[in-house]
Amino acid sequence: MPAKLELMNARGTRDTLPAEQIVKEKIAAVLKETFELYGFSPLETPILERYDILSAKYAGGEEILKETFRLHDQGKRELGLRYDLTVPLARVIGMNPQLKMPFKRYAMGYVFRDGPVSLARYRQFTQCDIDIVGSRAMAADAECITIAHDAFRNLGFDALIRISSRKLLSDIMEKAGIPQSRREGAILSIDKLERFGKGTVEKELEEKGISKEAAAGIFSIIGQSGSNAEKLAAIVKEIGESEGSRELKDLMELLDALKISYDFDPSLARGLSYYTGTIFEAFLKESKVKSAVCSGGRWDNLIGEFLGRGDFPAVGLSFGLDRIFDACMEKKKDTPKTVTQLYLIPIGNQKDAYPIARQLREKGIKTEMDLNQRGVTKNLKYASSLGIPFVAFAGEDELRQKKLKLRNMMSGAEELLLVQDIIRKLKS
Amino acid sequence: MPAKLELMNARGTRDTLPAEQIVKEKIAAVLKETFELYGFSPLETPILERYDILSAKYAGGEEILKETFRLHDQGKRELGLRYDLTVPLARVIGMNPQLKMPFKRYAMGYVFRDGPVSLARYRQFTQCDIDIVGSRAMAADAECITIAHDAFRNLGFDALIRISSRKLLSDIMEKAGIPQSRREGAILSIDKLERFGKGTVEKELEEKGISKEAAAGIFSIIGQSGSNAEKLAAIVKEIGESEGSRELKDLMELLDALKISYDFDPSLARGLSYYTGTIFEAFLKESKVKSAVCSGGRWDNLIGEFLGRGDFPAVGLSFGLDRIFDACMEKKKDTPKTVTQLYLIPIGNQKDAYPIARQLREKGIKTEMDLNQRGVTKNLKYASSLGIPFVAFAGEDELRQKKLKLRNMMSGAEELLLVQDIIRKLKS
Repeated sequence: MPAKLELMNARGTRDTLPAEQIVKEKIAAVLKETFELYGFSPLETPILERYDILSAKYAGGEEILKETFRLHDQGKRELGLRYDLTVPLARVIGMNPQLKMPFKRYAMGYVFRDGPVSLARYRQFTQCDIDIVGSRAMAADAECITIAHDAFRNLGFDALIRISSRKLLSDIMEKAGIPQSRREGAILSIDKLERFGKGTVEKELEEKGISKEAAAGIFSIIGQSGSNAEKLAAIVKEIGESEGSRELKDLMELLDALKISYDFDPSLARGLSYYTGTIFEAFLKESKVKSAVCSGGRWDNLIGEFLGRGDFPAVGLSFGLDRIFDACMEKKKDTPKTVTQLYLIPIGNQKDAYPIARQLREKGIKTEMDLNQRGVTKNLKYASSLGIPFVAFAGEDELRQKKLKLRNMMSGAEELLLVQDIIRKLKS
Repeated sequence: MPAKLELMNARGTRDTLPAEQIVKEKIAAVLKETFELYGFSPLETPILERYDILSAKYAGGEEILKETFRLHDQGKRELGLRYDLTVPLARVIGMNPQLKMPFKRYAMGYVFRDGPVSLARYRQFTQCDIDIVGSRAMAADAECITIAHDAFRNLGFDALIRISSRKLLSDIMEKAGIPQSRREGAILSIDKLERFGKGTVEKELEEKGISKEAAAGIFSIIGQSGSNAEKLAAIVKEIGESEGSRELKDLMELLDALKISYDFDPSLARGLSYYTGTIFEAFLKESKVKSAVCSGGRWDNLIGEFLGRGDFPAVGLSFGLDRIFDACMEKKKDTPKTVTQLYLIPIGNQKDAYPIARQLREKGIKTEMDLNQRGVTKNLKYASSLGIPFVAFAGEDELRQKKLKLRNMMSGAEELLLVQDIIRKLKS
């Protein structure tokens, strides 16, 4: 006899029961709507990719490959589960020369990483990306940052957006006398300033072979105070004008014209080495979620390098759907476990109540009807445990008058109403 | 030097570019809306499942396991990609005893089968299921069939719904003298009547050891003519009343009360052996898609058998999203390649046009703005090739009057309008 089946999720994966999935889908719907208002269209790529695509030079890199789920099909082809939505985008661009530039797409989908599991780290999680391929204009960068602003506003959050530029950081490094070969490393250390403080970063820079004087130079240049424009002006005064400073000035003027508030933070660098210009990230001001809920930037080289041809400047951003979800759940108590607005309880002949349920549905009221002909007490308990806001009793006398007794499950108040008035009430 | 990267999709998978994905998402949205009107809530389960769950007795069965993608995580745990949404539902029911019954859930998601690839058969495809767990009432079956009816109506299709009952078919087999052990096989042959004709089925039944007399008995009982009610009455007259006939009568009365049209076809059996009662399928009347676009039925035993405990009667249906998509594409020509409704071309200072683009977006108009400051001809070509219906020119004089020149890309007609009038026009 076989051992009893042990019911478990695969490690690092989880089910999303209705109470949570309803919230997730609302977040996804708000993001989708925001993206589409800016003319981004959906692109869907498969979860299964050929392993040679995922492991190509200039794809995700060594570290990510260690965490890539690998498998074979029946034809012994090597496959992998996608670890991001960026490499598939580069593949699509390469395979579809008919696509018009700029190509503005959004994608929301599962990605997979076979890494250590923790409370905040799953092996299957959702990425939610927008990218504009085919524009070098700062107008594109401004659009992405505006979308971040609008998305959080539309989700009911007050977000702090921090922006900077990899190019400007590179210029600052140059001015501080950091040799080209050590700039990338120095930039990654500077990125830790906010989280770990000056002492830690100084030590790290020293370990990376950067002199105390050079480090002091960097700190002095990036440690400006004042408004965003003042900080940039002060930096330009020290290092002179450069492509990086000109782009950032352009970007800041565009954002100011749109009244998008942001914080220019020259120490911001973002970990990913594929960023080439603008970088930004967003945090929620009044939430226990302290990590960035969205981040992005310009990545002008990856697609061309991946394809080994062409020039495909790109800028985009990625929303952390799971973190945004956590922040939404903080604000809610007792979220309903169903989408249902109205629970209809037939008293007497169930069949007579059917056309009423149908009428409510045709008018857009999400209606569940008792299927099992249970008693009133059991039905009320069921509706209450699911968090359904309204219950309606369909007695034979009431049905003859086209009326139902409507009960507000929060207040307990009951009133006899025409079906059409119930529809009006629930719609408002 | 590495060989040049060959850009290919994994075999049996495909990208969905915006023109197609926009249509797919509209279909998914209509289905989701229809399900929610009936009080079904979303449940999301992972793509990765433990292989022992997927291969458990009473899960998907031998045939499907041969086509299951298998893989390991870093901890050497055996995993698989889900091949349906039913086994995960059974697992969720088992792991969440707090769920209230009836549990009404929908799920739309990718499933994977490593089988032969053809034009209509992919290795990654979308399933779109609704199920009611915890009700034996025919009211639940009627609800599922009504949803099929409403979904196709809401999608703009005229669908033919065929219904029958496994129980009734079993009773017919008994009456015709087919021994218990041969009934399942005989039912699967009878199911081919419509597609392959009487001759083929007779031959197959004979091969299965069913006598010519018994076969003739079956054909005579199921070959009734008349209205749905008349056909059922004629069958009952021949085999007597049974649970199967009573359930079907109940179901038909409920559907009639709701004015849902359907075709009772006693030869309908559906291939899947886990069906236990009502079975149904839907076809599109005026489409080149000839296969069923939706099918379902009652499956009272699977969850209890899978869990090895409990009683979880269930009824549900599955929509073939890819087939519905094919049918939608038949009706459309030149689908737009973007969600964008309005393409804004700044003439002169790009920055002055930004607040206008923002205003349009805030009012719900999906607006793309020229980012690259291209000339008018290039911009018009871009807008036209994406199928954007309207273009607006933002010249400096016009902007001062809060006006734009709006061009209808279909007719070529142009008019100078206030931004608020453009919003009104595009919203209607």
